Amino acid sequence: MAYSYDYERPGLTVDCVIFGLDLESESLNVMLIERALEPFAGKWAIPGGFVHKGESLPQAAIRELREETGITDVFLEQLYSFGDPKRDPRGWVVSVAYFALVSPDQHPAQADTDAREARWFAVNKVPRLAFDHAQILEVALARLRGKLTYAPIGFELLPQKFTIKQLQELYEVVLGTQLDNRNFRKKIFAMDVLRELDEIQKGVPHRAARLYKFDEKKYRQLLKQGLSFQL
Amino acid sequence: MAYSYDYERPGLTVDCVIFGLDLESESLNVMLIERALEPFAGKWAIPGGFVHKGESLPQAAIRELREETGITDVFLEQLYSFGDPKRDPRGWVVSVAYFALVSPDQHPAQADTDAREARWFAVNKVPRLAFDHAQILEVALARLRGKLTYAPIGFELLPQKFTIKQLQELYEVVLGTQLDNRNFRKKIFAMDVLRELDEIQKGVPHRAARLYKFDEKKYRQLLKQGLSFQL
Repeated sequence: MAYSYDYERPGLTVDCVIFGLDLESESLNVMLIERALEPFAGKWAIPGGFVHKGESLPQAAIRELREETGITDVFLEQLYSFGDPKRDPRGWVVSVAYFALVSPDQHPAQADTDAREARWFAVNKVPRLAFDHAQILEVALARLRGKLTYAPIGFELLPQKFTIKQLQELYEVVLGTQLDNRNFRKKIFAMDVLRELDEIQKGVPHRAARLYKFDEKKYRQLLKQGLSFQL
Repeated sequence: MAYSYDYERPGLTVDCVIFGLDLESESLNVMLIERALEPFAGKWAIPGGFVHKGESLPQAAIRELREETGITDVFLEQLYSFGDPKRDPRGWVVSVAYFALVSPDQHPAQADTDAREARWFAVNKVPRLAFDHAQILEVALARLRGKLTYAPIGFELLPQKFTIKQLQELYEVVLGTQLDNRNFRKKIFAMDVLRELDEIQKGVPHRAARLYKFDEKKYRQLLKQGLSFQL
């Protein structure tokens, strides 16, 4: 069965950049799949595939992610659309990319139908990727890091009660850089989303630190408004 | 001549939300075109159209904008892709939206090939729009306003030397709301991009205010760091 049109039409795909923030091993990971089919068979790629007629873009992204990695139940956010005419050797294929930040231990990888294998890679140790996926990953990483400066992203990956040090480590792992302790404390308190608890850490070998919680109401408000670190 | 494929493919369009910031009349405008063709002939819409094979997405956006409004030479930024299966009565059509902020007096509207008329409308007085363009406009407006809180957007629309009051008016017009003077001054100075000049306003009936310039270097740095929605 074939479909014909008066004008040439592009193939339309979705790609899902899933970041896994592993606070224990202080690693920011990304989920990749080993392609089973040509082009780029045997190469690693961001999970994704063709949008089916009748699907919305996020529906297609959720389906492809499940089919290729077994991952479900993540909050996908639209990242960017990639339409360079030469980005796919099969011809004219435009891709709408999505991204999400999850806790990798809650989302173990399981390769499914269209992929040989699905696996977490540290973002600074990814193999050579198929298509323009290295560029898509770069854009996703820049977006994730950019968001951290104006939205309380990834906070739900921390324990419910946490120390400022743990929060700083989250920032440091995502940003891939060390931060100045004093400056970090100043900026975080200025965001005004933390509630100081009348509790300190238990069972730690070093001096126990103060525990904090997020002020749920202010946290939600911030998520909606997207307040910045600077302004 | 017809093109056929094994699977159904979507039509792919680009749409360009062009905001015009008119500081004189304190109005935030958007450029709309009156559609000449069905569907929605005679209705107002965001300028845009089908991507041609061989074009990149921004190339298509620039071409459509020129063809439908005569506007050239604007910095288009990708906004979002819209793919609801029911968004277009012609069938499956996915649209990649772009947006820009310009000075309307530098970009007079001239309807061209595919549009009957092109005209600026105040964003709070737009007519009923074709397709899902009301939703696209809403997303663009939210993005523009969101950006203002973490990036120095639209500053290039001010005179080279300006008062804090003028800068505040820019913010107020884009945000469509009054801001507290003292709070605004505090936040703007905290951004650390202004250079105080040894000059005051001339020829004003009221008490002359201090003039400022942007610190080019810091401004560029902010544009680079702060723009997380951009490539």
